[in-house]
Order: sequence, then C-alpha cells, then structure tokens
Amino acid sequence: MTQSYLSSNDTICAISSANGTGAIALVRLTGQKAIEILNRIFVPSRRETSTGDFQFNKAIFGKIFIDGELLDEVIVTAFQNPYSYSGQDLVEISCHGSIYIQQQLIELLISNGARLAQPGEFTFRAFMNGKMDLSQAEAVADLIASNSETSHKMALKQMKGGFSGKISELRARLVHFASMIELELDFSEEDVEFANREDLKNLLTNINTEINKLRSSFSLGNVMKQGIPVAIAGKPNVGKSTLLNAILSEERALVSEIPGTTRDAIEDTININGINFRFIDTAGLRHTNDTIESMGIERTYEKLNQAWIVLYVFDITDITVDEIEDALTEIRNQLDDPSKTIILIGNKTDMLTESPHVFKHLVDLEAIFISAKRDENINLIAERLLDAVQLNQLTDQTIVYNMRHFEALNQASVSIGDITAGFEQGIPSDLIAIDIKQALHHLGTITGEITNEEILNSIFGRFCIGK
Amino acid sequence: MTQSYLSSNDTICAISSANGTGAIALVRLTGQKAIEILNRIFVPSRRETSTGDFQFNKAIFGKIFIDGELLDEVIVTAFQNPYSYSGQDLVEISCHGSIYIQQQLIELLISNGARLAQPGEFTFRAFMNGKMDLSQAEAVADLIASNSETSHKMALKQMKGGFSGKISELRARLVHFASMIELELDFSEEDVEFANREDLKNLLTNINTEINKLRSSFSLGNVMKQGIPVAIAGKPNVGKSTLLNAILSEERALVSEIPGTTRDAIEDTININGINFRFIDTAGLRHTNDTIESMGIERTYEKLNQAWIVLYVFDITDITVDEIEDALTEIRNQLDDPSKTIILIGNKTDMLTESPHVFKHLVDLEAIFISAKRDENINLIAERLLDAVQLNQLTDQTIVYNMRHFEALNQASVSIGDITAGFEQGIPSDLIAIDIKQALHHLGTITGEITNEEILNSIFGRFCIGK
Repeated sequence: MTQSYLSSNDTICAISSANGTGAIALVRLTGQKAIEILNRIFVPSRRETSTGDFQFNKAIFGKIFIDGELLDEVIVTAFQNPYSYSGQDLVEISCHGSIYIQQQLIELLISNGARLAQPGEFTFRAFMNGKMDLSQAEAVADLIASNSETSHKMALKQMKGGFSGKISELRARLVHFASMIELELDFSEEDVEFANREDLKNLLTNINTEINKLRSSFSLGNVMKQGIPVAIAGKPNVGKSTLLNAILSEERALVSEIPGTTRDAIEDTININGINFRFIDTAGLRHTNDTIESMGIERTYEKLNQAWIVLYVFDITDITVDEIEDALTEIRNQLDDPSKTIILIGNKTDMLTESPHVFKHLVDLEAIFISAKRDENINLIAERLLDAVQLNQLTDQTIVYNMRHFEALNQASVSIGDITAGFEQGIPSDLIAIDIKQALHHLGTITGEITNEEILNSIFGRFCIGK
Repeated sequence: MTQSYLSSNDTICAISSANGTGAIALVRLTGQKAIEILNRIFVPSRRETSTGDFQFNKAIFGKIFIDGELLDEVIVTAFQNPYSYSGQDLVEISCHGSIYIQQQLIELLISNGARLAQPGEFTFRAFMNGKMDLSQAEAVADLIASNSETSHKMALKQMKGGFSGKISELRARLVHFASMIELELDFSEEDVEFANREDLKNLLTNINTEINKLRSSFSLGNVMKQGIPVAIAGKPNVGKSTLLNAILSEERALVSEIPGTTRDAIEDTININGINFRFIDTAGLRHTNDTIESMGIERTYEKLNQAWIVLYVFDITDITVDEIEDALTEIRNQLDDPSKTIILIGNKTDMLTESPHVFKHLVDLEAIFISAKRDENINLIAERLLDAVQLNQLTDQTIVYNMRHFEALNQASVSIGDITAGFEQGIPSDLIAIDIKQALHHLGTITGEITNEEILNSIFGRFCIGK
C-alpha cells in the first residue's frame, strides 16, 4: 500500500471481474469525472434522444475508440451519485474478455484522467459516502473470500448490517447512560442524584452481558470461518494419511463438477453441506519411553484438544476389545473436555479374510468400517461429521468472526469493567465519564464512527482490486 | 463435446467472467424461459411501477434467494429478444465474485430449469438467430483469445463483417455468373448465346484474382496471429540463450505493470508495440564433419528459412572482419530468400577492454552492440525489429488468418479453375453449372450459409464457456 485512502476526489478505475481471459470482463470507473471520461471514449450506437444527457441505470450498447480506432464493442451502464455502489458517479463497462482489451481499456481510462484503483477503493468510497459502515465494508471482502455456506452466511449477515445494528444499539445505551451521569455532573453542586442508581447498574450489566455474548461467539465464528478442526489419531501404520487423502480427494472431485468454478483446494480442508472441516493429521499414538517420541505424543494430545472432533483410526485386522477400550480411556483422560466427540474408524476392511471377532463390540461403539485404500465407505465419515456438529441453529445469532472486532469488544469490555468498578466504589461521575468515552470509542472503531488512516489502510488493503 | 449444438430451444446459463474469485462475477442466462427463471429467483428492491412486467435494458438492483434464504445482492440486466447478444431473451446477473456465490447461483439456475451452456453456445445462438454469420462468430472467439494489437485488429475486423462482406460479394458475382449461364441453358435448344463470353471470362478472372488475394494473405495472417518468426543464430557460446532470456524478461516486466492483467507468458513470444515476435533459438552454427552435428546445422538452416528476420549474434571480443563476412555470405547462400533481414548483434560488450579493431566495419554493417549478461541495449533490438516489419499498412487489407477459411478458399479456387477450364474448352453449360455450385458451396461454408453439425461443433467447441 503506497497510497492513502483518505482522498476520494479523483476518479479511479479497475478491472472488477476475476483475473485472466473470460468471455466477458467488467471494468469499473468511479469519481467526479467518471461520466466525463466515459463520454470521451464511448460512442453509443443509438444517440439517446430524450435529454441529450447520459441515461443512468440503462444498459447502453456502443463502441470504445482509442485515437479514432475501434477497440471493442461494449455494453455500458452508468449509475448516478449517490445511487451507486460507491456513492459517486459510477460506470460499468462490460467488454470482451481478452487480456489485451482489458489492458488497453484500463490504459485508455488512465490516459483520460482516471487513476488505477487501490485494492478495496470502490468499497472505501462507499464507506466514506455513508453507503455502509466499516464492519459492513469488511464484510464485503469476507463475502468475496467466502468458500463455504457458513462463512458466506456470516459475511452476508454482517454486510446486511446485523452486527452493526447490535453495536449501534450498545452505543446508544452507553450514550444514554452517559447522559444520565452528565446530568448529575451538571448539578453536582446541588448534590442531587437524578439517575436511579439501581437502573444504571442494571443497564451496565445488560450492556456487559451483550458484549460478552458477542465476545464468546468469536471462537465459534473463527471456527466457522477457518473450518471445524478434526484431528485424525491412531497408532502408527493404521492408515491415517491414506484416509486423509481419500477424504480430501472425494471433496476435490465434487467441487470440480461445474466447469469454471474449480477452486483452489484449501490444504486439508473439505466442505460438507456448506460446512468446512479442517483436518489435522497427528503423529501416531503409542506408549514409549523415548523422550523425543514422548514429545511427539505430547504434541498429538495438544492437537486433539484443539480439535472439535477426533477420528480415532485403527487397523481392523489387528485389534482387540481391550486395546480399543484402553485407547479410548487414555485419550479421554488426556482431553480437557472428556465429552468431545470421538468417532471410531476401523480401517483396512480390504485385508479382512473373515468377520473380525471384535465386530459386535465395534458396532456397539458405532465404529465406521472403511477401506481407505479402496476408497470404500468414506462418505459415511462425512455423514457422521455432519451429525456431530449442529450448526444450523447457531447461524441465526450474531457471530463475531473478525479479529479486529473481537479485540475492540475486549477493550470495550475492559472499559465497562472500569465503569462498573468505579460506580460501585463511588468514584466521581466526571472520572466515570472518561471510561464511558473509552467504551464508546472502542465500539465506534468497529463500525467506523471512530477510525484512522492506519486502520483504514489495513482493512481495505486486504480487498481485491476492483471492489 | 457431448452435446449437439443444433438445438436452441432450451434455456442455458454460464459464468461469463473469467474463472476464479473476483470483485464481481457475471452470470448469463439465455433462452425462452430466461425471464421466467429470473422472476422465480430474483426480487427487485423497488418493484417497477410502470407495467408490472420486467423492464428490459435496465440495471435493476435486488436480491437472489435460495429456498427463501438470501444468497446475494446483485444487479440484473435483461435484454429482450431479438435485441440481445444471442437473439433470445438474455439475462445478465452481476453478483459478488466469490466462487461460492458463483457456484450456488449456477446451481440455482439449473434447478430452476436452465442447463449449463456448452462452450460458445451463447454465440452459437447468435449465429442461429441471424445476429452474425459463421466467420463473425469465429472472430468472437479469436477476439477473446487475442494477445496483441495485430491479432486483436484482425479479429475485430472479421467480427465487424469485413471478411464476410468480401465473401458475400464474391458469391453474388458467382451467382450472377451462374444466372447468365443458366439463361443460356434454358434457351440452349435455340442455340442463342445471351451472355457476352468475353465479359464472363473477365468476371471469372476477377473472382479468381480476389480469391487468390485472400488466399495469399493467409501466410501473413497466420504470422500476425502466431507472431513474426525471428531466428537467433550464431556460433556456440556467443550468448544466444542469454540474449533470448534478456529479451523475454524485459517484456515480462513490462506486461506485469498493470495489476490484474498479468498474462500467461507465451513461451518465447514478446509483444513490441502491438506486434508479436516469436523467437526461435537455433543450434550453434559451425563447420563440422560430424554427421550428427551436420544434421543439427541442417535443421538450423531450416529454421532460418522459416524466420522472417534473423538475429546473427557474435562475440565482439573474438571476431574478425573476415569471419563476419564469411558467416553472412554462408547464411545468405543457404537462405531461399537472400534479401531476408539479418540483424547483426555484437554481444559481450561487458568483456571489452579496448575498442574492438573491427568496430568501424561493424558500424558500417549496422550491427547492434549489447551485453546480454548485463541487460544493456536490449531495447535497441526491439526498435530494429519494428523497423524490419512495416505491418501498419497491411492491417487495412482483409487478411485471412483462419485455417478453415483458408481451406475453403483453396477449394473454391479449385472449382473456379475447373469453371475456367471448362469454359475455355467449350464444355456444356449444365456441366459448368455444377462447378459453379461447388464454388458457391465452398464460399458458403465460410459464412455459414452452408454448414453441418460437425463443422459447428468444431467451431464452437473451441470457445470458452460463457460466450
């Protein structure tokens, strides 16, 4: 980032469709001179008769010329300020999608007075022009980066203002609280208490509860964004890696069914019915007196604790009831949360010559029987994973998934704690007012009422160009 | 290609912007049910008041829902048949460019009765509905694939109907010729000659001349599309490969200046002022009695003959006037066209300790002095290459660059030859009429008056999806 976002007086342009050759590419232009520049390079096929002026919101077919030479036939749609994405005059040019045309068109716009947009600069202007607040602007970038139903829904909800509404409400309550306190301050010499102390305390408690609810949603939000962590555990050579590959390759085949939508595979993450699961391969678990290997097992248990779900894999041709039970007991003993879902997976059914003698016991334990090598029954694991997480009901609540928001909420929470403490200790109202301002400040950074260039740069810098 | 292009009754959809994540993606839908499907999934933010019906050519903001759940906020533009690209009702949905949204939107359209479009199927429908002829449809694919000013211009000209016009004119002349012949045929029993034989002969000659002009433009067209072949020759170890790398890396640095337009480097091809040059590295040239090495040198001379321009590289620290002259003489002796441009390049100026004694002579030969290793003076080569080709005046004429068109012209030419021969030998008019029909047929395949499924499949199969 070399350029400040704080100016939005000039006219910017960018390729807004994905990089590369396509049937069609979309080039956007926004700013005070957008229409002026358009008129210089674009000749509509039919001159509009009504006003002589440009008709907004209308798809207009015509030609783009460079120095009198035809570059392309395009469809142009112009949006008038403030009724556009950016809140400024905005022009969308839909051209043939060759790299050559895209390049030439951008160069033509630049030579006519536009400047190449910084990443996220269209959305930055939307923010500056009051089309959306900062958390909504951030959600636009999240929406574009979403790769699962859950991350998509969280971003969409935030973009639509769900989270902003919550924060505004909290700020409004705090402002009300502050006004009560300040009223006391104004009449402090007369020693009058206007506000009902009990009501104020309740208000503070409510605000605190709301903020804590949002804060505690963060770990869930983060997991939904990154993928639910699933650890694959088991003794060495039971087929953990083969299983992981089988699971991942199934997903890849699914994803690439629709041409033009093949996506970059996220390492070790699969999407089942809109939910991302992130797999963590662990070192084999076995008893050992070797120090170095003990450390490896220590790390394995750490990973098991980070996971929401554990897949315990064993070799069905080489297992006894006691071994299974011992392993399960040992794992549960090491887990911070012993109620964590553990799914038993009996691998190597392809090696079985007869029904295993432990079969009945394994069925009772709801084990899944698979052959990772032959790719058999892998789909059963997907079903069991979905059963283990019931996220549907969770997506209706407001979920914080953005680290910046989480930190602002933490700081607001500290200030609220200070207010409460001061209040209880009978500290003078003017000192309490300072803490209220602090809390308002931290909440304000989320929606962008309070901001600075550094924050803006870091937020919009992670956008793609053209948005 | 599994599906025939011959039906255009159903409704098709595709992602028309480039593959991958972008700020915005464009999904298109065309066919009889395009509007019906749109109405089922899209809710405009402001209900249009005028007619209750959908307003065409207007950018309409609104929401896409899947089973009552919001998928995205989008801008929709609908075009009414026949005033659309495909000539059918056509809907463009401009959505947020995440892979997830693109995938879901396509799946939603399919579940509402659309089918995923085959490559080029939108353009195929434009062809079927008389929006463009076959050579224009082919030019659309060429336009999208264009990567230089010249290939872009050739495709654009063909798309705008320049070539089609020529072919229609030739066909019209042949039809006129045929009508004259047939008139004679009708009255043949009365032994009357209606057509002036001399005029007919002139007409035939003119048609033939035109066809031959188009045919001979093909090698130029092909070169302009593929890049002008430039051979790099010289003795072993004079720095040919270093030079090639220096030339290619300069280009790559240039190309990647505009974000979002970085293009796949075409191996060994660079673009200078809109013209592609394709470099051919050759084995070192030296005298030898070794059979295998002789064969290598044989191949080098073949490559020199294919090239339009030869860069002859020598080591400036190790060369005499005689050696230069001998090399030039030998190369010219081996070339089919001894007037071919040979540019002398004195490499390794970084190794010079004093002014070379052959300096004066080399200046007279207009040699360029460079250091490939230090990347010095490489730009002078680009200038000299541009000087060597003066293509600007050529781009105004109609140039055939499509192999299918070239072959059709060749076959038409054979038929015209048969007509001429038959005519001169006094063969009966009804037999000549058969050859005329053949010539008309071959010209008709170019513009698509005459076509079949196989040809259509092979033409539209090379399109990208979404066009």
